[in-house]
Amino acid sequence: MRLIESLATTPELAEVFSDNSVLRAMLQFEAALAAAEARVGAIPESAAAAIAATAIPEGFDAAGLAEESLRAGTPAIPLVKALTGRVRASSEESARFVHWGATSQDVADTAMMLLLERSRAILAGDHERLERALRRLSDEHAGTVMLGRTLLQAAPPVTFGLKAAGWFGAAVRGWKRVESRFEEARMLQFGGASGTLASLGENGIAVARALAGELGLKLPDAPWHTHRDRLAALVCACGVYAGSLAKMARDIALLMQTEVAEAAEQGGEGRGGSSTMPHKRNPTGCSLTLAAAARVPGYVASFLFGMAQEHERAAGGWQAEWATIARVVQDTGLALASMREVAEGLAVDPARMRENIAATHGVIFAERAMMLLGAAVGRDVAHEILERATRRSIETGWQLKDVLMEIPEVARVFTPAQIDDLDSPEQYLGSAEIFRKQLLESSK
Amino acid sequence: MRLIESLATTPELAEVFSDNSVLRAMLQFEAALAAAEARVGAIPESAAAAIAATAIPEGFDAAGLAEESLRAGTPAIPLVKALTGRVRASSEESARFVHWGATSQDVADTAMMLLLERSRAILAGDHERLERALRRLSDEHAGTVMLGRTLLQAAPPVTFGLKAAGWFGAAVRGWKRVESRFEEARMLQFGGASGTLASLGENGIAVARALAGELGLKLPDAPWHTHRDRLAALVCACGVYAGSLAKMARDIALLMQTEVAEAAEQGGEGRGGSSTMPHKRNPTGCSLTLAAAARVPGYVASFLFGMAQEHERAAGGWQAEWATIARVVQDTGLALASMREVAEGLAVDPARMRENIAATHGVIFAERAMMLLGAAVGRDVAHEILERATRRSIETGWQLKDVLMEIPEVARVFTPAQIDDLDSPEQYLGSAEIFRKQLLESSK
Amino acid sequence: MRLIESLATTPELAEVFSDNSVLRAMLQFEAALAAAEARVGAIPESAAAAIAATAIPEGFDAAGLAEESLRAGTPAIPLVKALTGRVRASSEESARFVHWGATSQDVADTAMMLLLERSRAILAGDHERLERALRRLSDEHAGTVMLGRTLLQAAPPVTFGLKAAGWFGAAVRGWKRVESRFEEARMLQFGGASGTLASLGENGIAVARALAGELGLKLPDAPWHTHRDRLAALVCACGVYAGSLAKMARDIALLMQTEVAEAAEQGGEGRGGSSTMPHKRNPTGCSLTLAAAARVPGYVASFLFGMAQEHERAAGGWQAEWATIARVVQDTGLALASMREVAEGLAVDPARMRENIAATHGVIFAERAMMLLGAAVGRDVAHEILERATRRSIETGWQLKDVLMEIPEVARVFTPAQIDDLDSPEQYLGSAEIFRKQLLESSK
Amino acid sequence: MRLIESLATTPELAEVFSDNSVLRAMLQFEAALAAAEARVGAIPESAAAAIAATAIPEGFDAAGLAEESLRAGTPAIPLVKALTGRVRASSEESARFVHWGATSQDVADTAMMLLLERSRAILAGDHERLERALRRLSDEHAGTVMLGRTLLQAAPPVTFGLKAAGWFGAAVRGWKRVESRFEEARMLQFGGASGTLASLGENGIAVARALAGELGLKLPDAPWHTHRDRLAALVCACGVYAGSLAKMARDIALLMQTEVAEAAEQGGEGRGGSSTMPHKRNPTGCSLTLAAAARVPGYVASFLFGMAQEHERAAGGWQAEWATIARVVQDTGLALASMREVAEGLAVDPARMRENIAATHGVIFAERAMMLLGAAVGRDVAHEILERATRRSIETGWQLKDVLMEIPEVARVFTPAQIDDLDSPEQYLGSAEIFRKQLLESSK
Repeated sequence: MRLIESLATTPELAEVFSDNSVLRAMLQFEAALAAAEARVGAIPESAAAAIAATAIPEGFDAAGLAEESLRAGTPAIPLVKALTGRVRASSEESARFVHWGATSQDVADTAMMLLLERSRAILAGDHERLERALRRLSDEHAGTVMLGRTLLQAAPPVTFGLKAAGWFGAAVRGWKRVESRFEEARMLQFGGASGTLASLGENGIAVARALAGELGLKLPDAPWHTHRDRLAALVCACGVYAGSLAKMARDIALLMQTEVAEAAEQGGEGRGGSSTMPHKRNPTGCSLTLAAAARVPGYVASFLFGMAQEHERAAGGWQAEWATIARVVQDTGLALASMREVAEGLAVDPARMRENIAATHGVIFAERAMMLLGAAVGRDVAHEILERATRRSIETGWQLKDVLMEIPEVARVFTPAQIDDLDSPEQYLGSAEIFRKQLLESSK
Repeated sequence: MRLIESLATTPELAEVFSDNSVLRAMLQFEAALAAAEARVGAIPESAAAAIAATAIPEGFDAAGLAEESLRAGTPAIPLVKALTGRVRASSEESARFVHWGATSQDVADTAMMLLLERSRAILAGDHERLERALRRLSDEHAGTVMLGRTLLQAAPPVTFGLKAAGWFGAAVRGWKRVESRFEEARMLQFGGASGTLASLGENGIAVARALAGELGLKLPDAPWHTHRDRLAALVCACGVYAGSLAKMARDIALLMQTEVAEAAEQGGEGRGGSSTMPHKRNPTGCSLTLAAAARVPGYVASFLFGMAQEHERAAGGWQAEWATIARVVQDTGLALASMREVAEGLAVDPARMRENIAATHGVIFAERAMMLLGAAVGRDVAHEILERATRRSIETGWQLKDVLMEIPEVARVFTPAQIDDLDSPEQYLGSAEIFRKQLLESSK
Repeated sequence: MRLIESLATTPELAEVFSDNSVLRAMLQFEAALAAAEARVGAIPESAAAAIAATAIPEGFDAAGLAEESLRAGTPAIPLVKALTGRVRASSEESARFVHWGATSQDVADTAMMLLLERSRAILAGDHERLERALRRLSDEHAGTVMLGRTLLQAAPPVTFGLKAAGWFGAAVRGWKRVESRFEEARMLQFGGASGTLASLGENGIAVARALAGELGLKLPDAPWHTHRDRLAALVCACGVYAGSLAKMARDIALLMQTEVAEAAEQGGEGRGGSSTMPHKRNPTGCSLTLAAAARVPGYVASFLFGMAQEHERAAGGWQAEWATIARVVQDTGLALASMREVAEGLAVDPARMRENIAATHGVIFAERAMMLLGAAVGRDVAHEILERATRRSIETGWQLKDVLMEIPEVARVFTPAQIDDLDSPEQYLGSAEIFRKQLLESSK
Repeated sequence: MRLIESLATTPELAEVFSDNSVLRAMLQFEAALAAAEARVGAIPESAAAAIAATAIPEGFDAAGLAEESLRAGTPAIPLVKALTGRVRASSEESARFVHWGATSQDVADTAMMLLLERSRAILAGDHERLERALRRLSDEHAGTVMLGRTLLQAAPPVTFGLKAAGWFGAAVRGWKRVESRFEEARMLQFGGASGTLASLGENGIAVARALAGELGLKLPDAPWHTHRDRLAALVCACGVYAGSLAKMARDIALLMQTEVAEAAEQGGEGRGGSSTMPHKRNPTGCSLTLAAAARVPGYVASFLFGMAQEHERAAGGWQAEWATIARVVQDTGLALASMREVAEGLAVDPARMRENIAATHGVIFAERAMMLLGAAVGRDVAHEILERATRRSIETGWQLKDVLMEIPEVARVFTPAQIDDLDSPEQYLGSAEIFRKQLLESSK
């Protein structure tokens, strides 16, 4: 992980796209190709063995290959050249069969598939923990009342359990889409020059099948050099999931505001302090998530724009995607890991939540009072009374119910119990708990 | 359809998002809400009847409502006010129950769902015809050989049937994703002020269920005012499909180039002429598709960025999406309708395809010659011979096989039949036909 | 203005891109072209007169033209056809000279330039008022102290005057860029089929110069059919300005939070109420700005992606931009008009600002105390003392200075006046006023 | 340069954003800050000397800092901690003054400014060479006629000199915008916790001025922690320039098509070969440019979306930009360096250009014939004749002028010289040369 990308990946995902890992994936393709071709008799067994023995990242000059990649317009050409050179050192004969029948994009795309498989496992682990943490938060706070907030204004109450369940539902749906798109996309790329495997003659399909098997990838209907929709769908699914994580992050960052103070990230080793302000507890995890999620939509747009790729293999098509895919996965993974950590450590302050409700003087229950009153005095009269009362409550700072009790028409109608109850948030939660449970069910 | 949007929608989709249609969808929500509430006894039957009788677009001042929408920040407030006024004209009592228990965003989101249902049917019709036309093109041209083209350079041959099958496979996958995202997204929005349906007391869920039934929409786990992932996934699916349509459009526009001339749009009434150049047959349908598809990724990015919506209802969240969703659907629909028309009328010129192969003097078969020769003289020697021969062929304009026959080592090895056959494209198609069939199978 | 776009434009800008206005701009081009050509003798004066007499929007069927535009891939072809028909009705001879020497894109691009000129005047008016309102707010509140907020946490104080000056500075810079890009982009488009004006022979440049003069546009070095950088730069400048407006909107929406309550939009006729919650004062103007500004970056991306336009005129190039440019301008204009209204009516609550500072118990001044103390006891000792004191202040709710006075080392050092002053925000504003003045200077 | 980014930067720009370079820039800020503070007497001279002596990248653990950056949400906190530790090793006293009065974002933003200054010099060098190469190409081919191409169809002729001049004009304008935005953006960031420099008391402005001087940056009106418009404008300018480079790349890639073959990249060491097809000369430089330019608009959108940053310093604001800015500059630099190389080595084939004109059988001159004929027989009759003749020419493959000569009305009108001249491209270039010269003038 480098400094310039230190806020744009996790260390684990940085490793997946490190030189060593990328090299390994490309070499894995070349070794598996040779093995598959040997199995169907297209090349000698000895060549496959020689290639396999040489196809390990150690000893390759990654930095040099990177510079040659830029010259060649693809990392495949210099890699194949270097690999061939190393095989030739042990067997002139075997060297002839390196990369046999494949085209540059076959290596680049398939290697990316292997890297995506590794990334997927990392994301899956973080998602599972996030899901668990959110379910626990929701259950623990099923009865924790707090202000609803609409357009950033106080609104009738909700529960923190419902809010966490909302995040949970979106995360579960988001991950299901990502998972299914990873599954759809994990396809071998193998088509040769024009995508027909012509140079392999009758053996094309058999080699492709064996190669897919070697690499643990799926065999597509046909090579997909310029049909990028499966990858695009994966990139989009990451974008949607990152968007839902950003919603969670924004909510929590807002709850952590000094003036709201209803929740707090755990902080902990090296996290979230301020260099100049010792009193601060910063929403560091939320900030990283918001930052990562702000980058992903741009990548998605780039990917989609790049889909109009020419004919059998495009001029710049997959090259545009190569770095982008890594970044999508890294930023999504960072957003996910950050919110996982935030959710696992989140401190919730139910007392403060109740204070913030109380600070509204009960005006968020005006709708409720209006409906109770309306049954007795008619809805129009009730509406007019409540408007006046609400305004007075805001101006004076009195509780709405105290203002109401001073109005004879109201005092006459309401029983003491009713008036007492009027601004009890627990009595005005509607279907919150039903919704909460239904959301938690959704992951099963 | 207005002039400024005349290249950004089809007439059918322009109608779906016209004032009349948008008004009708919002009023349909209000009428169905009243009906559902009457059914569970939350409001009087007579009120539901009065509201239903009034909830028709005729007589509403759409332009006036639009201006008030901008003031209010939502079309729902002025609409509800206007509807209430009209109901009051017939029944003071019933007017009290307009919009009962709903919030502005409930109307806006649910109305959008109803408009999306209508859009979906239009897109489905065009997709079905596109799919059929591409299948027919692919079958008719299963044996039509043409140049493969990689990085816009001549490459070993493919068939036009395979190329069309590639478009077909991407279109089928693209539409499946769009369909399944339409299905996932078609959800009622109904949550009231804070998304708890608190003002409906015990009746919340029952009303919601009845309302979903009335409107033919699905009932979600919970209101989704600030959880926009299902819509985001639909918007993304449109983006991916539009991207695949753009690939098809780019391919055909390139095939229609004067210098290539292998395919042509049908033209026809009002289409594709040039005001100054009578000889031209422009790729008008492809251009419209490329233009529409160039706009969609921007919308996708906007939608994804906007997902970080605050708390129970956001400040500007759905407002940012309202126009965008319409545009995504309209531009995707335009790209689809245009390529459907292009595919249905496409003229393919197999003779010209063969000429363009011939014009390469056989150098695209160098790979093939090398492998045949390699068996006899060793792969390295063969490679060196072919490099020289290819260069000479390009310089002199001779056929590669004629150049080869002048080289003693080659003349000695190849039989006359082999040499004759060398640059026969039909003999170097590899697995093209298998891939083609597998792609066509994919839609079943 | 239609309902579906009612949150995506102002009424004034909707009018600029209405059918009537678009038609008028295209016809203005045709009339001016004929006039210019008559002036240099390329066509008869009588033809120019006949065309001018007919080139008025009235009587054209805009809806019909829109549908034909879609068929033709450009509004120019059906418009020219319709115009020619109308001219022919009065003069067969003159009809031959309609659109003489021009290509479709010449009309479309130049008409857009004329529409942009009208848009620019509207935006300029709103900007000027915004600038004035922000300057007034800043001056009035030069001494109004409030919490600084970093990562949404309380931080050392600033003044509202500085905050408003920050918005002012960004707005002034933003508009300067927009203005200069409008000025750069307002170029005639006139090149004929291949951009050489070949069909006008020797007259090309003279006609172009006269035409630019007629229309009040600048004469470019050369036609720019596929060189869209000037328009791209304008679109980008709108994106940057909209981004700065969104920053202002976000700040104000946050200040309007119930828990913060330091500022409020004015509300007023039809603005910002809630259908269900009479007590609310919504950030409607801010929401509209945030919504509009969330769409613009997507348009910018689309525009930039579309710049790779082929050769002399592209397949789908300007068609992709036609609707997009209108939307960029409309959304930027909406963001601007909304913030202008917000700024002009903003209610600021200095007392509440002071209360919110007080509610932090002085911990935001820990940095300050540390430095004062450090001079006497050494910086390390001071740091340690302050960390303990801050923690205690947060836990107990005591003022930081009271906690400090209980610590003997501190009590010994500070004079009563010093301790009194410690959490006076006015004493810890650093260079706020200097920065404020410098920012206000920037517009001169 | 790493493999995964090997198609997304040049080696030079990879170095600018390498760990060593980023570290150096951050340390340069800290050293300059101490020096500036010592100069105004805010900290001891000895502390400044001790800090300067330690502030060199060697010995810092960049990889470790990167991981801690992620935890802290900023590279500044771990860097300052590490630097403080190293200063303390030599002087306990001096260690207290590291980072005095600054906030994390001050370091991060100012370091980015220093890195941008280095990038700018690299880009400037490539631009200058590109400009020179394009001017030379344009001048050399002022008289080289070639097909105009509109919507990818043959159109009246242009010159290659004009085409190159069009690229030149766009490049010159593009770079001017980039340059002026670099100049506008190169601002010191220095505001302390809340952007008021409060902890420096009266010294704030003096330190800021001295610091800007030390670093060779401009002093802004005020800190710009959450006002990102200057950087946004730079990012946009890169987007526009990259878009113009992509247009050039697309044109050349199209000219390099096998069927067109009018231009070719030079190839050369390691560039543009094919692993499987020895005959190919790939548009590698163009492909890299197209790939890079396809990524930039996504970054631009991300940047613009991220501008709505909260209050004095945002939660995730600059963090979202940190990696993005580097990528914008690297991809723009790659697009520029690639096209510079392409332009410097471009092989142009005037003979083939003429052949491609000839292959249209003169139908691209139909417009011309029509106008000549119209003078004699009336424009309507002429139009009808030409339509018929063009169709016949396309069907039969005869030259248009031969078809015309068989038509008695035409044969009667045209002199032999006229008919001979009819399809001479040199006679139908209109104002091409004037436009070319005007475009080349534009850089002066």
